[in-house]
Amino acid sequence: MKFGGTSVASLERIRAVAAIVRREADAGHSVAVVVSAMAGETNRLVELCSEVGDPAPALDARNVEYDAVVATGEQASAGLVALVMQNLGYRARSWQGWQIPLKTDRAHGKARITDIDQSDIGESIDNGEIAIVAGFQGVADGGRIATLGRGGSDTSAVALAAAIKAERCDIYTDVDGVYTTDPRLTKQARRIPKISYEEMLEMASVGAKVLQTRSVELAMAYHVPLRVLSSFDPPDAPGPGTIICDEEDIVEQNIVTTVTPDFDEAAVTILAVPDEPGRAAGIFIALADANINIDMIVQSASREPGFANISFTTKEGDVERAITLLAGEQEKIGFKTLQSDRNVAKVSVIGVGMKSHAGVAATMFKTLADKGINIQNISTSEIKISVLINADAAEYAVRVLHEAYGLDKKQQPAPV
Amino acid sequence: MKFGGTSVASLERIRAVAAIVRREADAGHSVAVVVSAMAGETNRLVELCSEVGDPAPALDARNVEYDAVVATGEQASAGLVALVMQNLGYRARSWQGWQIPLKTDRAHGKARITDIDQSDIGESIDNGEIAIVAGFQGVADGGRIATLGRGGSDTSAVALAAAIKAERCDIYTDVDGVYTTDPRLTKQARRIPKISYEEMLEMASVGAKVLQTRSVELAMAYHVPLRVLSSFDPPDAPGPGTIICDEEDIVEQNIVTTVTPDFDEAAVTILAVPDEPGRAAGIFIALADANINIDMIVQSASREPGFANISFTTKEGDVERAITLLAGEQEKIGFKTLQSDRNVAKVSVIGVGMKSHAGVAATMFKTLADKGINIQNISTSEIKISVLINADAAEYAVRVLHEAYGLDKKQQPAPV
Repeated sequence: MKFGGTSVASLERIRAVAAIVRREADAGHSVAVVVSAMAGETNRLVELCSEVGDPAPALDARNVEYDAVVATGEQASAGLVALVMQNLGYRARSWQGWQIPLKTDRAHGKARITDIDQSDIGESIDNGEIAIVAGFQGVADGGRIATLGRGGSDTSAVALAAAIKAERCDIYTDVDGVYTTDPRLTKQARRIPKISYEEMLEMASVGAKVLQTRSVELAMAYHVPLRVLSSFDPPDAPGPGTIICDEEDIVEQNIVTTVTPDFDEAAVTILAVPDEPGRAAGIFIALADANINIDMIVQSASREPGFANISFTTKEGDVERAITLLAGEQEKIGFKTLQSDRNVAKVSVIGVGMKSHAGVAATMFKTLADKGINIQNISTSEIKISVLINADAAEYAVRVLHEAYGLDKKQQPAPV
Repeated sequence: MKFGGTSVASLERIRAVAAIVRREADAGHSVAVVVSAMAGETNRLVELCSEVGDPAPALDARNVEYDAVVATGEQASAGLVALVMQNLGYRARSWQGWQIPLKTDRAHGKARITDIDQSDIGESIDNGEIAIVAGFQGVADGGRIATLGRGGSDTSAVALAAAIKAERCDIYTDVDGVYTTDPRLTKQARRIPKISYEEMLEMASVGAKVLQTRSVELAMAYHVPLRVLSSFDPPDAPGPGTIICDEEDIVEQNIVTTVTPDFDEAAVTILAVPDEPGRAAGIFIALADANINIDMIVQSASREPGFANISFTTKEGDVERAITLLAGEQEKIGFKTLQSDRNVAKVSVIGVGMKSHAGVAATMFKTLADKGINIQNISTSEIKISVLINADAAEYAVRVLHEAYGLDKKQQPAPV
């Protein structure tokens, strides 16, 4: 069971978490719990670190200390949850990453888990103790605390579940499951009973912030069934949530599972780049070196013979840096004009059923065309089609696509 | 170098601490720094723990979690101080208790240090790294974090200084040294350049809160010279502070070194206890079982033949419990009446010179008698004489005794 920051935001919330843990323990389950820091605490600690430091990119030694400071948030909440469980009469103990040990590489601030020794914590759980684990952190070679980066508690939970061979990893959050689309955009959005790892990964890749990508990758690799559910449901009447599992464990597979909008997009167009080998590579290497992630690359012929136009999208927060960087390289790259447009959004339809069903893309393009929505850019994967459109049309596009794929009507199968 | 909570209370104060550490490093010293939690942080964490727990005395398992939560305060401040030192261009790293490891027994919440492995931290310091150690905590057998109890950072610092064979342990605090008496009571109070471990222990025992008793005991056992000085002095012009050392290292020893008042006293008198063997023992065993510390016991004959009166003092916070407990045992103990008086204070004169100089007690009694101050109770040790008097007279008593022993006039010897 993993509880995020909003689920342990206050002592009242921590007591609610304890009631949920208690329910599972009373049902006869052996339980390990992974907790985040109390909401706001990590930001407070990060703020302290950044106020003592200069704003320049931190050296590694600084990251080590940053991790030592920031990791205290989860250490405190794990201890508090253990205390509450003890006060309810349960045997419980907190585990910090180094106590397990949960080992990581030395990429402080964004470390990856390399190994989890499940012997001690497994023995403790087998002896009937509830394990309350500080999420988001482990111990690197040399015995220094390393954090897994924002959202890393999901990854802690999945990795631990794999290590102790848990039947299931329940991710408690502030929503009651994964939806066919953002419920704030249409009342027709429905909770999905079961979704595949691949679809969740695609959703994360297009900006849906349900689970950290790395945690889904791990769950997929180790076949750990995940369940997303709300810690705000009454402890004695939990919702069914959404199960995330292998594709073959989903009997009634929809062709399209979700319609996912991403408003955090900006388009950059470079007009009239000399159409010679290496020009495009030069652009994207420069952007990569500056740590600017790009997406939806399209190269098209320019009106001027011997020149091409190159478009790509990036996150809104990166677009200014991208423009400045490219402008500085104008002579070297040899383009004529730079354009950017922040008023765009990406809308993606995702579904593993696309692998075996044709016509999904055709439905998308026709639906949007019928409604007069112009497609600026398209990118696809095996189980996803994304289009870039004007941001003002995005909510409408989501609603019509949601309807076009029958996501508003489907009697969703009950979870097993 | 040890810095308490007020010395690291804010980022501004942490920067001031870094300037002091920098001064010592620039002077060519190898430096280990022990830090407390930022002022208020430990209280915040204790408050969180007590709000989730019931107010009953905690079981051991709860204390373990309490320690895991509370210890995070020092872990964060150690990381922050290391970050500031790094930003000043110094090589520094934080050490948590388990990383050293600094081993303790399992008395969570008030653990004692059992062993410090100085190999890793010693090697780091020898390699020119400044060690920033989280005070107040270590790791018990079984790998759980244990705290040393309030004020434990002093003990961490002294134990570490002993382990790494430091030349000196500088305790930075919010006062600039140890004084002949409380400077708030008389402007005649003077900073003491040098004082012996024994005198510091007696001062602590009568309520002067300069250093934790255990830290002074450790320093005495391992002959670690301590220095108490202010972290609020300008970093480039530190005051000389007070050196605490072996008696024989003090050339110009005063007969009386300090006059120390203690207002946190209450007197309890049990009238007409049957004068039979075991009656007094019964009283004090009952009080000890209830964890009520008592002091200044006097037994005197009652007016009624065959009966005795027994008086003792205790802390003001304990007097109500003591009265309730004794009233409940009235039949068993067989006394007639109970009296209590909170309006009392203890005034102590302390000095190792008393061992070899007669007349110290006589001066005290005569001085107080001349000023019309009635002595209610007396207790002595080899280097201390304490009297219990009316609290209203205590400030006056301190001033006249301070003068009577010449503490206001003495040209104090300069520290070596």
